[in-house]
Amino acid sequence: MLKAYTDINEIVTMKAAYHKDGRRLIPDDLSIIRNGAIVFDETKILWVGDTDRIPAQYRPLAKNLKGHVLTPEIVDSHTHLIFGGDRAQEYADRLNGASYEEIAKRGGGILYTMQMTNEASLEDLFSISCERIERLHSYGVGSIEIKSGYGLNFEREFELSMLIDRLKKKYRTRVRIFNTFLAAHDVPKDFLNSSTYLQEVVLPLLVKLAPLRIIDAVDIFHEKNYFGPDDVHLLFTRSSELGIPCKIHADELNENGGAKLAAEFNALSADHLLKISDEGIEILAKSPTVATLLPGTAFFLGKPLARARAMLDAGVKVALASDFNPGSCHCDNLLLVASMAASQLKLNQAELWAAITLNAAGALGFKGQGALIPGMDARFALFKTQSLSHITYNWGRNFSISLP
Amino acid sequence: MLKAYTDINEIVTMKAAYHKDGRRLIPDDLSIIRNGAIVFDETKILWVGDTDRIPAQYRPLAKNLKGHVLTPEIVDSHTHLIFGGDRAQEYADRLNGASYEEIAKRGGGILYTMQMTNEASLEDLFSISCERIERLHSYGVGSIEIKSGYGLNFEREFELSMLIDRLKKKYRTRVRIFNTFLAAHDVPKDFLNSSTYLQEVVLPLLVKLAPLRIIDAVDIFHEKNYFGPDDVHLLFTRSSELGIPCKIHADELNENGGAKLAAEFNALSADHLLKISDEGIEILAKSPTVATLLPGTAFFLGKPLARARAMLDAGVKVALASDFNPGSCHCDNLLLVASMAASQLKLNQAELWAAITLNAAGALGFKGQGALIPGMDARFALFKTQSLSHITYNWGRNFSISLP
Repeated sequence: MLKAYTDINEIVTMKAAYHKDGRRLIPDDLSIIRNGAIVFDETKILWVGDTDRIPAQYRPLAKNLKGHVLTPEIVDSHTHLIFGGDRAQEYADRLNGASYEEIAKRGGGILYTMQMTNEASLEDLFSISCERIERLHSYGVGSIEIKSGYGLNFEREFELSMLIDRLKKKYRTRVRIFNTFLAAHDVPKDFLNSSTYLQEVVLPLLVKLAPLRIIDAVDIFHEKNYFGPDDVHLLFTRSSELGIPCKIHADELNENGGAKLAAEFNALSADHLLKISDEGIEILAKSPTVATLLPGTAFFLGKPLARARAMLDAGVKVALASDFNPGSCHCDNLLLVASMAASQLKLNQAELWAAITLNAAGALGFKGQGALIPGMDARFALFKTQSLSHITYNWGRNFSISLP
Repeated sequence: MLKAYTDINEIVTMKAAYHKDGRRLIPDDLSIIRNGAIVFDETKILWVGDTDRIPAQYRPLAKNLKGHVLTPEIVDSHTHLIFGGDRAQEYADRLNGASYEEIAKRGGGILYTMQMTNEASLEDLFSISCERIERLHSYGVGSIEIKSGYGLNFEREFELSMLIDRLKKKYRTRVRIFNTFLAAHDVPKDFLNSSTYLQEVVLPLLVKLAPLRIIDAVDIFHEKNYFGPDDVHLLFTRSSELGIPCKIHADELNENGGAKLAAEFNALSADHLLKISDEGIEILAKSPTVATLLPGTAFFLGKPLARARAMLDAGVKVALASDFNPGSCHCDNLLLVASMAASQLKLNQAELWAAITLNAAGALGFKGQGALIPGMDARFALFKTQSLSHITYNWGRNFSISLP
């Protein structure tokens, strides 16, 4: 079924940004059409241009969208949104001065979430996940990456990956779910070391899941005292043999060559990068890998933000994502976080919007998405306001609405 | 008419914080009653305690509020919410690298808002202000300070002060409006210097308004190239003769003794304080003046935040406010801004909540407000969630609801 809309105040096509592959953007790369019109079918964009020039055959279909702004859909390319319980008390304790070690001693931290995620019924995890997806979607987010990783044992991790697939099937095209396998999120205490856990749980699980063809990417928490470079090599070599792309939690707590590993394996994205080295930046700039920054986490933990400007200036493709999770970033509104980060990180308007649309789509390998050009995916966010600048300017206001 | 509520998950009474006058708070100073009950009439709190102990005569009235948290109402003690036009494009230009000077050259900045505020009809200013007040109120804010100051000529500044009074009368007790006279917000170009403008416009206007008894406080933008210490002396001496308390925009752009001036005149509050000196902190700690920090502005402008921790540790009473305005902080959700600032500023949970309730009420001279104790004002925020920690933890979620 064809749909056509006219008189849209601004269509943010991102055409120039798309042709630059999301690198080194200037404000004009937003390629905004004022008083624009667009035509698309169930899956693809057919025509975009000035309202005056819409081809005659589409005119009878057209709905008037004066007072609205159309952008590529917002993509949240890094979430851990399936979890049991919450860590509200732990967050208050942290504000009140408790250290991470004290919290861990009291049974808090990721191990608490692991316990709650294991104790919850799959039905409860499914319904709370749906609630969270609907909330993200209400802010204009159309594609959401969801990581497994709070089961941390063979059975529950298998169930979590299957549950993400069930969510994907439920939402189909309305919200596009990306299924990331993150059994290598932490090393459970009952394993001698990361390598044992990897060999005994993560790799066998991946081998079991791969033939089901439900896993969109493999991810690993590559940090000192979690998983080391040898673990990454093993996992990524295996996933590459299985034809599954990879992503990596890299250089968050320490600079330990995460960006380099990402580039070596052509990872879709290297995420966090708070401690990335200058060398790491150079390597990413030459690679297809997207640098996914998670400023909400820095805000939530009261830490400095990543060196976004240095990465952008070097020509790295930068995405922003929410990192929504129960412990280190309990904020699920990506547009809010990105708007607040833009002024801190000195992103221009094109860099900001590319970071949550085009480059975020790139971080999920969605090549046909992120720009409003004929032939690209018909995936949008629609905002009831006068201009793109008004969306960015109104921190915390939600102008997002569904297409009529 | 009496009202009684029982089974409230948490009543955040702030009793201990109140007795400390909001200074040097530890988390326990929140004085939370779990499974609490409260009784009040139109104006005052009559009884607060455990649900089990509610006096028998109130029991028949009581409504069950299980699953809710009651706090003192949130007070936004620093806003510039009456303005015409917006500066969305300017904000985008700033992200895109335009300097403040370039923006001013293009006719942007405060002078643009002044122009739009003068061109707007009073009815339009009234209705847009109502819209803004309703939105703030929807987040749990019950008292709002509103500054005049975008008229910058005798007639329009007079009208703005009258307009705030009209808002105050419209909202009566539902939202308590505080009317701050800020004709000394900037020096219009057609005046030789700040002193001329003060003598010719600000002081005569104050003398005209004072007998109407509608002005709750006088404020001034004390900064290099705006109003100097002599201007402050003149204005505050006059307002003090007229029996009107004062507030001051102090030490935002430069350290220029603003905190000291505030203490000298027993100002209700000294606001901004990004550049406050150690001496300024010591002086405020010994004074009754509240330090009102505006972290949203630092976020919005991409600047470092104020030294909240140093002030709190010295025993200064610290409030947080939104500074909602069209240019330097277009974010009207104080709870969101405060929650995001808490982790950056290392505020504990009591400091955070005192900063937006008890101390913010203090910054408006509302002595009977900010704690839920018998005899204090019956002014609350009610949140549909399990605990205070859940409110703080859920950045950007709005749990606030009206009392049933």
